[in-house]
Amino acid sequence: MREPHHDTSSPKPAPKAVVGRLSLYLRQLESFGRQGRETVSSSQLGQALGLNDAQVRKDLAYFGQFGQPGLGYRIDDLVVEIRGILGVDRDWPTALIGLGNLGRALLGYKGFRLRRFRVVSLFDNDPRKQGHAFDGLPVRHTDELPAAVADEGLRLAMICVPADAAQRVADQVVSAGIRGILNFAPTSLFVPPEVSVVAVDLSVQLEHLAYSVHNLHGSGATDDVSAAG
Amino acid sequence: MREPHHDTSSPKPAPKAVVGRLSLYLRQLESFGRQGRETVSSSQLGQALGLNDAQVRKDLAYFGQFGQPGLGYRIDDLVVEIRGILGVDRDWPTALIGLGNLGRALLGYKGFRLRRFRVVSLFDNDPRKQGHAFDGLPVRHTDELPAAVADEGLRLAMICVPADAAQRVADQVVSAGIRGILNFAPTSLFVPPEVSVVAVDLSVQLEHLAYSVHNLHGSGATDDVSAAG
Repeated sequence: MREPHHDTSSPKPAPKAVVGRLSLYLRQLESFGRQGRETVSSSQLGQALGLNDAQVRKDLAYFGQFGQPGLGYRIDDLVVEIRGILGVDRDWPTALIGLGNLGRALLGYKGFRLRRFRVVSLFDNDPRKQGHAFDGLPVRHTDELPAAVADEGLRLAMICVPADAAQRVADQVVSAGIRGILNFAPTSLFVPPEVSVVAVDLSVQLEHLAYSVHNLHGSGATDDVSAAG
Repeated sequence: MREPHHDTSSPKPAPKAVVGRLSLYLRQLESFGRQGRETVSSSQLGQALGLNDAQVRKDLAYFGQFGQPGLGYRIDDLVVEIRGILGVDRDWPTALIGLGNLGRALLGYKGFRLRRFRVVSLFDNDPRKQGHAFDGLPVRHTDELPAAVADEGLRLAMICVPADAAQRVADQVVSAGIRGILNFAPTSLFVPPEVSVVAVDLSVQLEHLAYSVHNLHGSGATDDVSAAG
């Protein structure tokens, strides 16, 4: 059995595509669970997601030994395991910074709440936005980030400010002690090695789509899964 | 010299992370060009993006032979090459389907226009939205997709409808002849092999961030770049 990475003292990151598929497995397993199913085979899980069973087994083996040969996986157990691996078995108090159209859309994005990513603080340095409240949350200046981290235990930040403000905001987020940033600004952020950044440059993702349509055919399912990570 | 994949008769998809970095190279090269620079070395390009020069050379070699050893890359030429590889050297008339908060935010997302992804048609099957216009574009029923493809040459569709409506809408998009889908609905879409789907499940990306913060340290820059693809 391979030592689960999340237990090792010097963890090696799982490939991004593997973590992305792990999220998809979790969604599918939860869906099977809601249907009252108790077990699933790697081929059944793969079939529901357009993947072959070898891929499913290889991805899960990356994190440890789950299920039993011939019997498949116990759905409840595997859901708990994957939630633990992903770290979504706990709440993630999250700050949303930048209340433009995208920021306000993200505030209403139900997918986050389903995953225990709770937006608990809003920040925007536009004086016209301060004092206002969205979803009952007041909009504060980013100078108040350190206080919010102390009071609300913020662990993640979603940065939805214009590109030219993003690095300055990221520096404030990092110095406030937040270690995870979801960056929606179309620019690269430079952060210390102990901070993780996931960039969501939607135009980069549209470019990947353009590349696929322009150059490839028959990669729909693969793209779908890999891009989800 | 390796045959550029976009010229081969049976193209093999470039790894998603490579295509994502290609988009980042393009942005950085355009920025260098605006600064009046004419040439750049792989180490200068990599440094600006937090990558080493070997990675830059390996990624570009995937698509062909660019630049000259010792002299580096001519910025103007490489920009043209990368735009051609990505397929962003032409307009991509795009349909936006689903005008909830997220759809309306995407309509205002400037990053798309910079990349010649022009949203030219809006669709929403909520009768209360039909007849309305956003950004001067009328909202139509998805039954009008085939006519819009014929009239406006739609090539891509952004699906921003609720999860339970996404597959039905995707089927309409595909039967209307659109071959590229950017899927914002938090569900997997099944499409024929000739159709490419890039999924943007924002909660999956937040889960990757949670995984990074929960399990890893020191992967910030890598995550930033890989996730951008």
